[in-house]
Amino acid sequence: MQNVFIHHVFFWLKEPSNDLHLQQLIEGLQKLSAVTTIKSFHIGKPAATSRGVIDTTYSISWLNTFETAADQDSYQVDPVHLNFVKECSHLWEKVVVYDSIAV
Amino acid sequence: MQNVFIHHVFFWLKEPSNDLHLQQLIEGLQKLSAVTTIKSFHIGKPAATSRGVIDTTYSISWLNTFETAADQDSYQVDPVHLNFVKECSHLWEKVVVYDSIAV
Repeated sequence: MQNVFIHHVFFWLKEPSNDLHLQQLIEGLQKLSAVTTIKSFHIGKPAATSRGVIDTTYSISWLNTFETAADQDSYQVDPVHLNFVKECSHLWEKVVVYDSIAV
Repeated sequence: MQNVFIHHVFFWLKEPSNDLHLQQLIEGLQKLSAVTTIKSFHIGKPAATSRGVIDTTYSISWLNTFETAADQDSYQVDPVHLNFVKECSHLWEKVVVYDSIAV
């Protein structure tokens, strides 16, 4: 996957122990995955690994690959994405995004 | 890629403007990609995107997928990985790792 655009988002829920909120976010991401410019995606939670450098504090990981940077730009303004933000943004207190292109 | 184990590492170089150090880290990661349990990998740098939630301060992104958590455990102690740490760890001042499994 060396030539793809990587878009990796980490969500910290306002109520990380609230299973209903967790499920609502997961279902929102499953709907969001329908955006047609997304090449591949992964909805994740922290693995059981544990070392000092590993951040396990987030609630949900949302990893996407896109063919091009333009496809990711398009995703940002896609109605499906805008609807996801509208429906789910009340659930989280922090989001961190890492966008990467091939070196 | 929903069922894979995601291992995403971000490196902050001690000298982020030092092109030689950047190249040494990239070459180290290219050698590291030979570890046989790695299913797929991406060596990246920050994209040109810019919003408040996007962290663009890192030097290099190293994203791997593994078939299983056990494969990632194996990678951590693989001689090729240990050699990478030995040869390249003097280059970075900070590493942050996110390990994720499917929800």
